[in-house]
Amino acid sequence: MQLIDGKKIAAEVKQEIKKEVEQLVASGSRKPHLAAVLVGNDGGSVTYVNHKVNDCKEVGFESTLLKFEDSITEKELLEAVHNLNQDDSIDGFIVQLPLPKQIDEAKIIEAIDPEKDVDGFHPVNVGKMLIGLPSFVSATPSGIMELIKRYNIETTGKNCVVLGRSNIVGRPLTNLLSQKNIPGNATVTMIHSRSENIKEICARADILIAAIGKPEFVTADMVKEGATVIDVGTTRLPSDKTKSGWKLTGDVKFDEVSPKCKYITPVPGGVGPMTRVALLKNTLLAAQKK
Amino acid sequence: MQLIDGKKIAAEVKQEIKKEVEQLVASGSRKPHLAAVLVGNDGGSVTYVNHKVNDCKEVGFESTLLKFEDSITEKELLEAVHNLNQDDSIDGFIVQLPLPKQIDEAKIIEAIDPEKDVDGFHPVNVGKMLIGLPSFVSATPSGIMELIKRYNIETTGKNCVVLGRSNIVGRPLTNLLSQKNIPGNATVTMIHSRSENIKEICARADILIAAIGKPEFVTADMVKEGATVIDVGTTRLPSDKTKSGWKLTGDVKFDEVSPKCKYITPVPGGVGPMTRVALLKNTLLAAQKK
Repeated sequence: MQLIDGKKIAAEVKQEIKKEVEQLVASGSRKPHLAAVLVGNDGGSVTYVNHKVNDCKEVGFESTLLKFEDSITEKELLEAVHNLNQDDSIDGFIVQLPLPKQIDEAKIIEAIDPEKDVDGFHPVNVGKMLIGLPSFVSATPSGIMELIKRYNIETTGKNCVVLGRSNIVGRPLTNLLSQKNIPGNATVTMIHSRSENIKEICARADILIAAIGKPEFVTADMVKEGATVIDVGTTRLPSDKTKSGWKLTGDVKFDEVSPKCKYITPVPGGVGPMTRVALLKNTLLAAQKK
Repeated sequence: MQLIDGKKIAAEVKQEIKKEVEQLVASGSRKPHLAAVLVGNDGGSVTYVNHKVNDCKEVGFESTLLKFEDSITEKELLEAVHNLNQDDSIDGFIVQLPLPKQIDEAKIIEAIDPEKDVDGFHPVNVGKMLIGLPSFVSATPSGIMELIKRYNIETTGKNCVVLGRSNIVGRPLTNLLSQKNIPGNATVTMIHSRSENIKEICARADILIAAIGKPEFVTADMVKEGATVIDVGTTRLPSDKTKSGWKLTGDVKFDEVSPKCKYITPVPGGVGPMTRVALLKNTLLAAQKK
């Protein structure tokens, strides 16, 4: 069994991005510039956005954080998005989700210039991803594809099962893994809450990706000997063994599953760190396009 | 074994559309108006476009056929698309593919106003389809979903195998069948040229959809007893039994497969007629939106 070390790979990717930024600057361009829009004071959102700003600093990007009260109207937020679209000093930006109830998230996302949509949520980017055109791919699927690539995990012709059909993980990942590409060319089955014979289908997978947000859902009997298992789950479970009082728990019962695996991602330290560098990669791409 | 009669269902849908047009007109709106852009004189394309124009007449739509020489430049064609986007008398339009070599098809498709893109090929419509938002769905997947719906074929939780990963059939169909919807909620596996164990995977399918363009590829040993088989293939094979000298042949070896099926589509007369009404449905939708 080999552990897929997302933390190590993420650090390597960050170093590569840092070098590319230095080259950009050396050739007379300005630093890539990411803006993040944060509405309200939700604990999770604040933490995520702060991480993103710190990541920018680490690789030599400019970053701008735009904070709004959670009483902001849809019209005002659309105005802010419009201004960011127009602002030539900004290469890409994200609007941290979720947004307050009075705001239609789909409307905000569709208002973002697809060329600056480094979260890859705009329908134009989703559509281009589906049909295999260059696009900004959203963070989690992009990070997972990068892990598969860096560990040279064979996907062509392989039986790949994706647990979860969310718009931000399961569905795009299913499409990326089945693209005529390397990594890609896999035979992908997407499983969800209405699927029958889930255990049986999982047990046939050469590559099993768990993204349903149910802690320790994948047990040893669902995993084939020699399979690769990627765990996207990040549920906080109460714990009396940690200082914080909780423990990040994946969708895979790691202790019993890992001995059967060829490769497996830990939680934390697997997919998580890769999602953060995916945003940096998209921002660099947006800057290089100019 | 029950035959899925696409010809009959298509005629029914056309009657329903005709009634909706009459209601639209009675309520003071003008008739829905479809424009078709035809470049060059490719035999297939001319036939397809003529069919589309005739279909419009049949259901009471206006139609406009715009013909261009195959020497047209990309700039001129973009200009024509732009004019159609601006023309308020036209609800939807299509640009018949393929286009001559000097023209970048993706560029033309992306120039179409997504609100008028009744072929459903624009990345915005593809992206919205993927994330489950209302959109124009392309003709073949839309026609197949309609057949499944009208025959009350159970899809929820079922094991569905789609043979073929094309951008216009396999990939969108995979996404539609797995959406949280009825029909939908299926566990879908998409198979393609690089897949391993194809026969074995097909033989597990409750619903098998063949869209790879290989005549009679699906044989009896690949089909489970009681399965539903949908045949998207339309290859013209030479024949000395027909006046035309050719015979339309599906991806399924109908004679040996059909006895095992609960439902099966014939070729011709199955999926084919439904793809034509799908365009009419999208055009009606575009007109109703206004």
